[in-house]
Amino acid sequence: MEKSAETEHPVKAFGWAARDSSGLLAPFKFSRRKTGEEDVRFNVLYNGICHSDLHNIKNEWGTATYPLLPGHEIVGVVTEVGSKVTKVKIGDHVGVGCLIGSCHTCKNCSNHLENYCPKLLLSYNSTYYDGTMTYGGFSDTMNLPLASGAPLLCAGITTYSPLKHFGLDKPGLHLGVVGLGGLGHVAVKFAKAFGLTVTVISTSTSKKEEALKHLKADAFLVSTDPAQLQAAAGTMDGIIDTVSADHALQPLIDLLTTDGRLVLVGAPSQPLQLPIFPLLYGRKIVAGSLIGGMKETQEMIDFAAKHNITADIELVPMDYVNTAMDRLAKNDVRYRFVIDVGNTLEAA
Amino acid sequence: MEKSAETEHPVKAFGWAARDSSGLLAPFKFSRRKTGEEDVRFNVLYNGICHSDLHNIKNEWGTATYPLLPGHEIVGVVTEVGSKVTKVKIGDHVGVGCLIGSCHTCKNCSNHLENYCPKLLLSYNSTYYDGTMTYGGFSDTMNLPLASGAPLLCAGITTYSPLKHFGLDKPGLHLGVVGLGGLGHVAVKFAKAFGLTVTVISTSTSKKEEALKHLKADAFLVSTDPAQLQAAAGTMDGIIDTVSADHALQPLIDLLTTDGRLVLVGAPSQPLQLPIFPLLYGRKIVAGSLIGGMKETQEMIDFAAKHNITADIELVPMDYVNTAMDRLAKNDVRYRFVIDVGNTLEAA
Repeated sequence: MEKSAETEHPVKAFGWAARDSSGLLAPFKFSRRKTGEEDVRFNVLYNGICHSDLHNIKNEWGTATYPLLPGHEIVGVVTEVGSKVTKVKIGDHVGVGCLIGSCHTCKNCSNHLENYCPKLLLSYNSTYYDGTMTYGGFSDTMNLPLASGAPLLCAGITTYSPLKHFGLDKPGLHLGVVGLGGLGHVAVKFAKAFGLTVTVISTSTSKKEEALKHLKADAFLVSTDPAQLQAAAGTMDGIIDTVSADHALQPLIDLLTTDGRLVLVGAPSQPLQLPIFPLLYGRKIVAGSLIGGMKETQEMIDFAAKHNITADIELVPMDYVNTAMDRLAKNDVRYRFVIDVGNTLEAA
Repeated sequence: MEKSAETEHPVKAFGWAARDSSGLLAPFKFSRRKTGEEDVRFNVLYNGICHSDLHNIKNEWGTATYPLLPGHEIVGVVTEVGSKVTKVKIGDHVGVGCLIGSCHTCKNCSNHLENYCPKLLLSYNSTYYDGTMTYGGFSDTMNLPLASGAPLLCAGITTYSPLKHFGLDKPGLHLGVVGLGGLGHVAVKFAKAFGLTVTVISTSTSKKEEALKHLKADAFLVSTDPAQLQAAAGTMDGIIDTVSADHALQPLIDLLTTDGRLVLVGAPSQPLQLPIFPLLYGRKIVAGSLIGGMKETQEMIDFAAKHNITADIELVPMDYVNTAMDRLAKNDVRYRFVIDVGNTLEAA
């Protein structure tokens, strides 16, 4: 007899899932495995909404398996620990980001780059070792192997990791940040904490005051203004580009110094146009970067705690999630929706 | 009275130039400046034909100024030296590559990256300090400032420099070389001298035996064969892509390891399609690289001498140049045409 999502595991669970590419989220009963000897079970308290959740529920990347229960910026409180768990106890706060598993044996895993493991398991929309689907944090309870149960949010590590890896963490360097959303606003905070000069690059002036006064960026550049682009040409050591919509790369490449790095952390589903001459003249780099490994994620959390860096959020109840998704699609959020799962899931 | 190319300078000169975007080369009388105190005058003996010469004479990059006298892989014998010249004497052999001048004061020049100087002067089709056009090596005589008069060929430094800069010079790494032409065949030779495992990547099998037996490449991959691409996926630490025509980047990106580098040294005039997901999964880099600076060019020459690396050439007379250009456009050359300027220009 084929098992359903509701009965395939012994632990009853409840959340909100999308059933098709309309992306509409609605209550969903499913189940989670019993707590294994290396597992930590926790009740979800809060879950951030990332633009990739929006891409996934609408199947804009073509990889969705429905029902799809999103959520990969998850924090909660531990309710049960397995017999081999020693580092976390009941009552502790824990977090889960994009990853819940990797092979732990390949070259990338050995180099603390679990995020580039070929057998990477994602928090949702992945097939777990036992053949069942993974479901994310838009739900009441989760359990995770301890190794992956460390605090690993998404927006933070996605911007912190490339700043470190591409050498954009040296005081005095000039960084551009394209797109002042969930990722971008955290990138500005990390970059300022590293001592960089930061220019926010946006298509309109609407976020200028916010960028300069609230986020303490050093400058604001409107990417549709040729005069501003010309004035800043060749001045940026690096750019973190958080935009996942189609957009022009040449104006950004032209802003880079010799050996400048344009790092894409957004994920456009269609190829972008890459002009080659501007790359050649200046030995410039266009690179991609995807979240970060376990070790670096912990380092990021420690750095954020030391420098008092958090995301600016708008806390919303569970039944607001579809409205939040609509607003997110219009970039109408300052800067990250977080669902108050612990207080509002049951009522929804 | 406006001065013509023939009379603007005191020294009579003769070569072959294109008059329009047909790219047809024909005899051209012009003039060169008298030998300055830091100049070295030399008679051109041989001049290689680079694909960029073909792009330029036909104005395929949109930057040609006619008459356009190409040639930037130039060697000759010194006939006169200026009063301040101490390192070169009459009778010495010298070479000139793509560069004949830079500002010597900017950050890039200070870092031995004259090739990325914003005031870079090219061997031809550039405006010299005195406002006159520069003319290349398809001609009888040249004079050059001594600092730029060091041996600097084009194909060698264009491939040597990115191998060094992007860390692709460590024994045991796996390198892909796309396109087995003037640049590609030299890239294979340098990479083998560095101790790399080299796979030649080509659209057809026509050069397989040549690549494996003559150039000693370790493997040959047909880029139109999905099975071969799949078998080699994720195995290459770097790829040197010498192709200047439009081509797909995704199959190449998929061949790279985590942190793999795809370095473009060809110069397609139109943007290429850059898929973003394959960059994100693996923190991969797409970069450009343009020739090299003076210091590294000398290092390259020394390395080539030590390892007995030269380009494989087909020596042709001056009046064969238009046929050579036609054959080059069809990739019908093994692997570099060189014009026997010294022996055949006068007769042509």
